[in-house]
Parts: sequence; C-alpha cells; structure tokens
Amino acid sequence: MKLQVAIDRVSLDYAKKIAGQLDSVVDIIEMGTSLVKDYGCYALQKEQLGIHHAELLLDTKTIDEGQYEFEQGFATGADILTVMGAAATGTLTTCYQVAEKAHHQMFIDLMEVDDAKTKQLLGFDHAIYGIHHAKDSSADFDAAASVAKFHAAYPQVSRINVAGGIDLAQAAKLSQQGIADTVIVGGKIMKSNDPVTAAQKFMKVIK
Amino acid sequence: MKLQVAIDRVSLDYAKKIAGQLDSVVDIIEMGTSLVKDYGCYALQKEQLGIHHAELLLDTKTIDEGQYEFEQGFATGADILTVMGAAATGTLTTCYQVAEKAHHQMFIDLMEVDDAKTKQLLGFDHAIYGIHHAKDSSADFDAAASVAKFHAAYPQVSRINVAGGIDLAQAAKLSQQGIADTVIVGGKIMKSNDPVTAAQKFMKVIK
Repeated sequence: MKLQVAIDRVSLDYAKKIAGQLDSVVDIIEMGTSLVKDYGCYALQKEQLGIHHAELLLDTKTIDEGQYEFEQGFATGADILTVMGAAATGTLTTCYQVAEKAHHQMFIDLMEVDDAKTKQLLGFDHAIYGIHHAKDSSADFDAAASVAKFHAAYPQVSRINVAGGIDLAQAAKLSQQGIADTVIVGGKIMKSNDPVTAAQKFMKVIK
Repeated sequence: MKLQVAIDRVSLDYAKKIAGQLDSVVDIIEMGTSLVKDYGCYALQKEQLGIHHAELLLDTKTIDEGQYEFEQGFATGADILTVMGAAATGTLTTCYQVAEKAHHQMFIDLMEVDDAKTKQLLGFDHAIYGIHHAKDSSADFDAAASVAKFHAAYPQVSRINVAGGIDLAQAAKLSQQGIADTVIVGGKIMKSNDPVTAAQKFMKVIK
C-alpha cells in the first residue's frame, strides 16, 4: 500500500520545505485544496516544490471546466489531479481523457456521492477512486470497513484510495486488509512535532 | 436585475485591468474558478483588483472545508463566495454561518443538484441560489425557462442568479420576466472586442 501525505492550510514556504523533506520518504505528496485555492496552481510547480522522487497530487477538486483545470494542473508537473464524483459525467469523461493523453492519473473524489451516482462513475479503468470523509462531517469514519464495503459493492474498481483522519492503527489495518491501493494521511503526520519521523512510522506499518 | 460579469481563463494582469474598467459599469465582478485555482485567493484581493464600486464574487466552488475557504475568501475583501449545492449539508451550513457573521453573501451553485437535494438546500434565507449550466455540458440551456421552472418549484427562494452562455436577447428576456435577481454573463462580454461597451449594452437591456 502507498502512503500519500496531504499538506494543507500552511504557508507556501512551509509547504515547500516539508515537501522537500518528505520527497524521499513517502510515495505521494498532496498539495491540498487549501493550497490550490490560497496560492494557485502556478505557485505549485513540482520542480519548485522540490519534489523529485514522490508523485505530486494537486487536490484541485475539479467539478466543472474539466479540460482547462486538468491541462493547467498537469502543466505544473503534477502526476495526479482530483475530480469530484459529484461533477457532471461529461466533466469526468473530459478529465479522464486529458489524464490518459498526458499519461497521468485522475483521482475521483467520492465525497457526497451515493450508490446510484457511483454506478455511473465506473469504467474509468485507470482512475483512482477516493473514499473521502468530508472534513465538515462530524460522523465517525471507519476506514477499513468503508473500504471493504466499497470493494464488495464495486469489485471491478482496482485502485482505491482512502482518506479521513487515518491514524497509525487504521493505516496498519488497511495494509493488512490488502484492498486499498493508497492511504492518505494529513493531520496525523503534518500536525505532529516531527512530520518526517511520523511519515516514516506510517511507511513502516503499511509496507 | 443586476449584472455579474465573469472573468475567466485570462492572465492576472488582464483580469485586474478589465476589473478596473468594469468596476463603475457593472454590479458584480466575478473572478472565476479558473483565476482562483490558477493564481489563488491571496492574489485576488479586492483592493488590488481595483474594485471600489462593484461587488466582488470569488467563484471558490467550495465543496468541503467550508469554514476555512469562506474565511480565507472573505479576507480578500470579497462580498460573495460560492459553495456547491452538491456539498454536504454541514459544509453549506458552515459557509452560511461564516457569510452571515461577516455580513457577506453565500452563493449556492446548483450545478448537478437534483430536486431531492435542492429541497435540502432551502432555508438559507439570505443566500443566492445559482442556476448554473455546466460548461462541460453540451445540452442547450434556456435560461428564462429554467428560472421560471425553479421559481415555480421553490417560490420561497427570493434570490435567484442564472448563468450559462447568456446573450443580450436572453438577458433582456430574463429582465422582463422579473424573477431573477442577477444574471451572469461571461463570454458574451469578455470575448467581445470591447468588453466595457459590451457590458454597457447588457446593463441597458436589463435595467
């Protein structure tokens, strides 16, 4: 299982500093939506962020203007961009086409997407399907149970990514479960006193 | 009826130039999602955009992290921020609370929101409800008919805003219809040879 670290709600300077430090430690570095909307994609170039080994995900949360946003996003050097499952089917199709053409990846954020809509989102074979717990939702989130349920319902989805307050114990459980392709960790790494050491601990339990 | 001009997919310098020119002509100047995601909110301060008379709308298309995005957005001096109707109810409630507290406005983008979900979105009395035609959708859009249908279904909504390829004839029709609070015009002004003159023509037919 891969580890994606989400960097959010920090200054651009700090985001760059921490990205450079995590580059050789984790699999995927996410520049969260807060950074995209605070500083913009032009300020989040992969090179300038000092990312040379990890993959870069920009959490663009595209919900319209798929071609423009995905072309702009990949032009930064990003490997993965996100589109909302709640977007129109045409937007998702366009994003997927741009991603495939660029030999990059589309991440579908399934937040607030019900079963009926999820069924319409199947068939993007190379896409990553992200089970995402809204930060604004106060309900508890059992990551492994959510992944198991999603996999049982949609066994054809080969790449599942899961996010939402994941701690070390949950990450270990997800790894043992062996379904999810990637786990996203935010606060449990970024809000620790030593993000690099925290990331190393996560890497250890998921490999 | 008010006129909102949407500025999108241009350089920051051009966005500033045109915003300054339109400031005394139109009611609301929108910095579109493309500008928010390309340059970030920190680059879109109302003062720096030269907007002193018109209201500023930042099309943040918030779908999670409502408190953070709305606090960051209003800190730029923006008068109106957008939230997706497809967001979780908790996100919408949070955005509304931030907007009310700041004595600013929340615009709910109804793109890809069905009737069942729209019913859950009612009751934000001061919010602007935006009937929005996805740029990625190729289907035809009859603005006046859409407004009439929405008004008949949800007569309690007092502020309706409509967008999607609106031309002069459609704007005039919407004005005569007398339901919509605001019309958003993008390409028909911004892609004309003389955006200021084009905006003046729209102002004339809607007053």
